[in-house]
Amino acid sequence: MQLKKVSKAMLRRLPGYLDYLKSLPENASANISARTMADALGLGDVLVRKDLAMVSDGGRCKTGHLRETLIKDIEDFLDYNKRADAILIGAGKLGQALMGYDGFEGYGLNILAGFDIAPTCTQTDSGKPIYSIDALEDFCHKNDVRIGIITVPSSHAQQACDMLIACGIKAIWNFAPVHLRVAKHILVQNENLAVSLTALRMQLKGQLNDE
Amino acid sequence: MQLKKVSKAMLRRLPGYLDYLKSLPENASANISARTMADALGLGDVLVRKDLAMVSDGGRCKTGHLRETLIKDIEDFLDYNKRADAILIGAGKLGQALMGYDGFEGYGLNILAGFDIAPTCTQTDSGKPIYSIDALEDFCHKNDVRIGIITVPSSHAQQACDMLIACGIKAIWNFAPVHLRVAKHILVQNENLAVSLTALRMQLKGQLNDE
Repeated sequence: MQLKKVSKAMLRRLPGYLDYLKSLPENASANISARTMADALGLGDVLVRKDLAMVSDGGRCKTGHLRETLIKDIEDFLDYNKRADAILIGAGKLGQALMGYDGFEGYGLNILAGFDIAPTCTQTDSGKPIYSIDALEDFCHKNDVRIGIITVPSSHAQQACDMLIACGIKAIWNFAPVHLRVAKHILVQNENLAVSLTALRMQLKGQLNDE
Repeated sequence: MQLKKVSKAMLRRLPGYLDYLKSLPENASANISARTMADALGLGDVLVRKDLAMVSDGGRCKTGHLRETLIKDIEDFLDYNKRADAILIGAGKLGQALMGYDGFEGYGLNILAGFDIAPTCTQTDSGKPIYSIDALEDFCHKNDVRIGIITVPSSHAQQACDMLIACGIKAIWNFAPVHLRVAKHILVQNENLAVSLTALRMQLKGQLNDE
C-alpha cells in the first residue's frame, strides 16, 4: 500500500476525532456522520469529511461511518497500535514525569529507559530503569532504538543530541527550549512548553496577534 | 506604554534568542550583533534584526546589542520576571510532574496547588499541596487565580474546563487531547503531546508533508 501524505494540520485534528468517537456513550448509534462530528467539534463539515475519507474508506452517503470501524481506521492510520521504542536522555523531573506518564502507551510510544550524566536513582516510581549515560550506546544498539527524547537543561541539549545521533537515533523529540543543529536526515520535533505558556500569558494581556 | 503586538512565530523565536544569549561563556564579548545570533541559530539576518528591534531599543549599527541589556529586555518583554499564579486540575502523573517541574519558574509561572476528584496524596514530592476539587472555588477566589491547567483524562476535560471558568479562570492551558468549548473571552492554549509524537513517527515513516 502506498503511504498517504498528510498535513500537520490534519494530524492535529485526528486525535480529536478519535477522542470524540471514544467519548460517545456505549448505547450511542453504531453509525456516525461527518456532519455530526463537525458540529460537535466546532469544525467545518467539508473539512471533516475530507479528513475521514483520507483515513477510512468506510464512509457511506446516507449512513456515514460505522463508529467502531472508524476508530480502528484512525488508530491504524496514526500507528497507535504499533509500538515505537524510545529512550530518554536527562532523567530529571520532567524526564521522569514523561517516563512515568502512561498516557503515551495509548499512542504507541514505549519509553524503554532513561539516561543521565548523574542519575539520582536507578528507576522511576513506575519502575522504568535509569542508567548512566555511559550505557547509552550499548543500549540503543542492542534494542534498535530510533527515537530519542531530550529533557536535559538547554545548555546540554546539543551535546545530548549529538550523542543520540552517534548512537543511531533518527528522530528526536526535544523538550529543551533550544535550536538543535542536526544533519538533514535527522528529524527533530520541538516541544516548547515555555512558548505555549508565554503565548497564553501574552494573550491574557492582549499582546498577541490572532493568526 | 502601549503594548506591542507580536506574532506567535516571533514568540516562538524569542526563547531561543534568550537561551542562546545565556549560553554564551562569561568571557564572551559584551556586545552581540543580530548577524552573529542569526548565524548561530540558523535564522535569517533581517528576521533576527526585526525581532530584536521589537523587544529592545538598545541596538546600535556598528556594535550591535549590549548582551546583558538584551537578555533583560527579552525577559521583560516575555514577562518572565513577573509571577503569574496558576492552579492545576487533575493531579495524576502528568499533573504532578508539571507541578514539580521547576523549569516553569524561570518563565514566571507559579503553580500554587493541584486539585483532583480523588487525590491520592496531599502534596507532590516537591511539597506543593493537592486538594480535593471541592476546595477549588474558594481557593481560586482567595488567591485571585486567572490561569488554570487541565491534566485530567479527556473524558473529564470539558467538565474540568467548565468548573475552572465558573471559578473565575480566564486562561486555560489544556493538556487533554480534546477540543474544549468555551465562551469567546476565555483563552485556551492546547498542548497536545500526542500530536507532536505522532508527527515525529509519521515523519520517520515519510508520511508527513513538509509545510
